[in-house]
Amino acid sequence: MKTIKGGITTPLGFKANGIASGIKRSGKLDLGLIFSERPATASGVFTKNSVKAAPLLISQKNLRHHKAQAVVVNSGNANCFTGSFGYLYAEKTTELFGKLLNVQPQHIVVASTGIIGKPLPYLKIKAASQKLVKGLANTQDAGRKTAKAILTTDLKTKEACVRCTLDGRKVLIAGCAKGSGMIAPNMATMLGFITTDAAISGGMLQAALRQANEETFNRITIDGCMSTNDMVVVMANGLAGNKPMTMPGKDYQGFLKALKFVCLDLAKKIVVDGEGATKLIEIRVTGAKSESQAKTVGLQIGNSVLVKTAAFGSNPNWGRVAAAVGSLAIKKVTEDHLKIKFSSFAKKHIVIHVDLNIGRHQSVVYTSDLSYEYVRINAEYN
Amino acid sequence: MKTIKGGITTPLGFKANGIASGIKRSGKLDLGLIFSERPATASGVFTKNSVKAAPLLISQKNLRHHKAQAVVVNSGNANCFTGSFGYLYAEKTTELFGKLLNVQPQHIVVASTGIIGKPLPYLKIKAASQKLVKGLANTQDAGRKTAKAILTTDLKTKEACVRCTLDGRKVLIAGCAKGSGMIAPNMATMLGFITTDAAISGGMLQAALRQANEETFNRITIDGCMSTNDMVVVMANGLAGNKPMTMPGKDYQGFLKALKFVCLDLAKKIVVDGEGATKLIEIRVTGAKSESQAKTVGLQIGNSVLVKTAAFGSNPNWGRVAAAVGSLAIKKVTEDHLKIKFSSFAKKHIVIHVDLNIGRHQSVVYTSDLSYEYVRINAEYN
Repeated sequence: MKTIKGGITTPLGFKANGIASGIKRSGKLDLGLIFSERPATASGVFTKNSVKAAPLLISQKNLRHHKAQAVVVNSGNANCFTGSFGYLYAEKTTELFGKLLNVQPQHIVVASTGIIGKPLPYLKIKAASQKLVKGLANTQDAGRKTAKAILTTDLKTKEACVRCTLDGRKVLIAGCAKGSGMIAPNMATMLGFITTDAAISGGMLQAALRQANEETFNRITIDGCMSTNDMVVVMANGLAGNKPMTMPGKDYQGFLKALKFVCLDLAKKIVVDGEGATKLIEIRVTGAKSESQAKTVGLQIGNSVLVKTAAFGSNPNWGRVAAAVGSLAIKKVTEDHLKIKFSSFAKKHIVIHVDLNIGRHQSVVYTSDLSYEYVRINAEYN
Repeated sequence: MKTIKGGITTPLGFKANGIASGIKRSGKLDLGLIFSERPATASGVFTKNSVKAAPLLISQKNLRHHKAQAVVVNSGNANCFTGSFGYLYAEKTTELFGKLLNVQPQHIVVASTGIIGKPLPYLKIKAASQKLVKGLANTQDAGRKTAKAILTTDLKTKEACVRCTLDGRKVLIAGCAKGSGMIAPNMATMLGFITTDAAISGGMLQAALRQANEETFNRITIDGCMSTNDMVVVMANGLAGNKPMTMPGKDYQGFLKALKFVCLDLAKKIVVDGEGATKLIEIRVTGAKSESQAKTVGLQIGNSVLVKTAAFGSNPNWGRVAAAVGSLAIKKVTEDHLKIKFSSFAKKHIVIHVDLNIGRHQSVVYTSDLSYEYVRINAEYN
């Protein structure tokens, strides 16, 4: 496996585009389109928030059969808490692009991020749709336009790409993501779109995405707040020509490893670009009774505002880490067992190592520090 | 029931004192003593953090028999994560004051708040002990000295007192508390000490404290971080002369109501004086399936840093409240059921009313906003 320069248009047969449709008043790119030349196996993971945005509900339904050929995504409006019209507009978006792309509406994934509770400006999307489709291209620049069109207050475009060999064939996996931005009244939304030319069955793709997501996007936290719009979608169009993966095995393991790498790379980029973030905090929890326990402990530390403000102040405050771990009230996790180690707190990448000393499992969680800038962004934006 | 001016020395038979023993380098009061002239029925509630400070372990043990006659409390050092010496020093403190007060050591409650992980300067406590005992007085000023000696970076002294009539007798209940202060490496600690001249059995006192605590101190959150040292202790010496409460009934209900009032008053004072707090946020959750569900939802909103920064910015951001509620993934709590109402966000006291519309139970939770000052206090302190 090798990381290469590239984005969602690097895998064979994928085109993309991104334009400014006027949803964002700033005039920035706000409408993106990813298109696979041939119908792709597809899969998604979605927020567990019980308040779900309309496009998320539709994409969840459409992906039930593990088939998709295009993703339409807008920023500037979350189309969440928008009632039956919100649902209708999201549905109409799939019909609109279905016609333009000559694809069945149920093979179109829709995603939104931005303001909650305001009607989706569907007419702007409709007006811009032909231009968006006409501009589809397989250049790296076209992929970057989509990567830019999904951003809200993210400062940086987030792309990743790797090449691996499966069944003797060169396979490419790439992705773009957006992280913690906010437009009032809103909260951070995490969106991730992954393209690959690997040939894989729907069930195996779903399994791979679930596991990769669990070990990457689900192990980052900016502020512990779960969004209504979070989703990660992967499309695999099979153009690499490898023997389709339909069972676990060596090829699948190689694919999973590469997929995880792309997801982790994007996840870390989200943390580093978190609202007001000045540091990447890596929390390594070892000696746990299970991996899931290690992850829970890591997230408890990663969501502690006391730990995050201490990191911002370059203050190696292990008492706060101990208190965060203890607050989970795990049996035997007392002063006698707990060991806490820090790397230098003055650096941009901090490692907090917590050994629970009650088992043999481990996990890693990533978070950012909590700065004045975080408060400013989230208090002052209107 | 009537609120009156007063503190922990207002109920009959209680004396107190507070002095500067040198634990705090600032020279501020740091050692407090509360003494009941006659042995009192006593009860305590303690942090559920699995990392527990030494004095907490000893007080928990000592209060098992529901008897106490004195509380010794220091600020400036948490005596937590201090190994076997920490435990020894806390034990020696009970022996030292047991001798000076002519009380069995197991009838002495010890509490600490301050730096975690540094040895308790026991010799300073020993050197100051005689002066502390000699200065015991039943004046309001003496009670206030204890109330001051327990503070860390709290800006205000927190006292409350009520009078009620039980069994035809005048009964007094009073308390003092400290909230969110920090001295690195440390986290917010909540301490509460309540005195009353009511006559009540140990079992009933424990039941009353548990219920009062559950509905007051357990419904406030500054930053969602649970301390290693939290405790609330009540001593009831019976000098009011009421028929001892040993069963539920009218008297017990009256006592419980007054105790809750004192606890709620102190709890709100803790929130208002929270680190960097500029606003009191009252979160009313109605329409829940159970009171405990309503409380869980309230705390989820109260711990959302996105809600708290929005409150600081006077930004009535209901999308963030909806996302916080939804993140609990409670069945049926969707866009269709959820109703959110705000009072004016420009005021010092904000009310967020969330109706889940899935049941008939409710709860109220209090929190503060998250300001630049909170980040400054927790990042810069060294």
